Amino acid sequence: MDVTVAIDCMGGDHGAQVTVPAALNVMRRDPDVSCILVGRREAIERELARLGAAPGARLRVQHAAEVVEMDEAPAPALRNKKDSSIRVAVNLVEQGEAAACVSAGNTGALMAISRFVLKTLPGIDRPAIATMLPTLKGHTYLLDLGANVNCAPEHLVQFGVMCSELVSSVEHKERPTVGLLNIGVEDIKGNELVKRAAELMRASGLNFHGYVEGDDIYKGTTDVVVCDGFVGNVALKTSEGLAQMLATYLREEFSHSLFSRLAGLVALPVINAFKDRVDPRRYNGASLLGLRGIVVKSHGSADAFGFEFAIQRAVDEARSSVLAHITVRMAAIHKSAA
Amino acid sequence: MDVTVAIDCMGGDHGAQVTVPAALNVMRRDPDVSCILVGRREAIERELARLGAAPGARLRVQHAAEVVEMDEAPAPALRNKKDSSIRVAVNLVEQGEAAACVSAGNTGALMAISRFVLKTLPGIDRPAIATMLPTLKGHTYLLDLGANVNCAPEHLVQFGVMCSELVSSVEHKERPTVGLLNIGVEDIKGNELVKRAAELMRASGLNFHGYVEGDDIYKGTTDVVVCDGFVGNVALKTSEGLAQMLATYLREEFSHSLFSRLAGLVALPVINAFKDRVDPRRYNGASLLGLRGIVVKSHGSADAFGFEFAIQRAVDEARSSVLAHITVRMAAIHKSAA
Repeated sequence: MDVTVAIDCMGGDHGAQVTVPAALNVMRRDPDVSCILVGRREAIERELARLGAAPGARLRVQHAAEVVEMDEAPAPALRNKKDSSIRVAVNLVEQGEAAACVSAGNTGALMAISRFVLKTLPGIDRPAIATMLPTLKGHTYLLDLGANVNCAPEHLVQFGVMCSELVSSVEHKERPTVGLLNIGVEDIKGNELVKRAAELMRASGLNFHGYVEGDDIYKGTTDVVVCDGFVGNVALKTSEGLAQMLATYLREEFSHSLFSRLAGLVALPVINAFKDRVDPRRYNGASLLGLRGIVVKSHGSADAFGFEFAIQRAVDEARSSVLAHITVRMAAIHKSAA
Repeated sequence: MDVTVAIDCMGGDHGAQVTVPAALNVMRRDPDVSCILVGRREAIERELARLGAAPGARLRVQHAAEVVEMDEAPAPALRNKKDSSIRVAVNLVEQGEAAACVSAGNTGALMAISRFVLKTLPGIDRPAIATMLPTLKGHTYLLDLGANVNCAPEHLVQFGVMCSELVSSVEHKERPTVGLLNIGVEDIKGNELVKRAAELMRASGLNFHGYVEGDDIYKGTTDVVVCDGFVGNVALKTSEGLAQMLATYLREEFSHSLFSRLAGLVALPVINAFKDRVDPRRYNGASLLGLRGIVVKSHGSADAFGFEFAIQRAVDEARSSVLAHITVRMAAIHKSAA
């Protein structure tokens, strides 16, 4: 299935030097993918020339004069930068010229602009950010990762529905299991938010597993783990910090002495296989779920290899019918509640 | 300095088989430590006999007929089991017979009983649970880990004060830095709870660093990281899950093929040094802070090596003047606020 993706080429720590080669790689692998490269024409064309590429039937450059800085507040970025690369990329989705867009830029601005331009799907109050994470059994999806710091129980139910439909649409998994993140699995545990959300989830028609705890994320207990954006953001960033610390320690141990350096050489293929398996770049690309359009956020520090995964996620979602499925499911819930 | 520790010998997944040998080991290493072993006399004496030990001047057995089960609800355990090993151990602290107590038992029951028997320190509304975690720079303290799922901003300030005094008393560190866990470091980030808590912390006389994010825990950005019990519990358990997944993956990679098994043999001393460095047993022993007595909670699954660290933490806190320091600091804050 042909898919056109709008790519914010200016976002992230490395801009066009990362986004342009990643786009070219995805197009090389998949002849049915077309890209619209959005941003400062000069910067993009310079990068294309460096890579020996040029615009053509499947590759278009769309000039956008402004750039939203990584530390800019979302509200002024939305209000004042009408010609930013993020805004123009999201506009292309709204206008139907692209089936999805990808950005490694300012998360808050991407969310604010996407919400303003695309609006939310019927029945969805607030979009949420979901990402795939590796587990002992394969992978799971965690949401929300920070779009919503104050949630009502109804929002958590909507997050569960959206992400459940994402998993069934993109991974062709029937009735994915949904867990609600709590600090214990017994009914008496937790705050009022999760207790009420659990009641609503039980009545929602979701394949609701019940409460899960932090360690269940990486055990892969459920296909989807739902929490509010504060908790999800802390869980994700704590994981990043721990993984970085362990990687540093491992590197240090393998360089302590002559013996450990030699052991490191012998073990290198094994260590590399291990690193490859847990490479966070393979999980790059968070979905802004609940919008009337597909928007994927790449980690700001992603390299071209990582950014490719974010583009691929946008392509996969565009080829699924996730938005229609969320709409149908939310309508069914509203009907049964009415 | 002589210290007597009351040890709940029945708690945890392994009971006396873990708690008794751990107590003997600590006494062997430190001639100034005395232990009161609390629980079913028969079970404790059987374990002492197996280890060739007997009660004496530094070792006493205190019979307690009941045991709080690991999955028992705290309220009935507090109300009905007046002769549980947890209750008797905490009573010994209250009566001044022991300077601290340690339990690997039911966390909720230990907290409820400790709070009822010992009461909170002046100026402290609620006790919190704090643990030490390894970081890139050494270690940090995280609290609360689950005692308080609904916190007011004032509670987070008290957590900061208590843990700051713990670090300065036990580690002799002047004015430890305190970070408030949030989902961004900018002032506009976060929910109302952290925003108000940050204002109060700035005015509290704490060495307040400002907001930190999840990855700052393991970077070791601050000496203390404060959050509510829901968030802290998720951060801690997510870390446990990730560490277990990575350990499993590493083990699997080193057993894939004949070559990887050989590489594993060569790298074994290095891998063991790495595992040793991040061994969670070395960080076992969470402090129930804010009580008029020292109570330490061991992980329920701890082995004797891990339980020793929990006892050692209780000894270290008993030798410090952490309770007096918390009281003085809280009085100063109340005076300046009045």
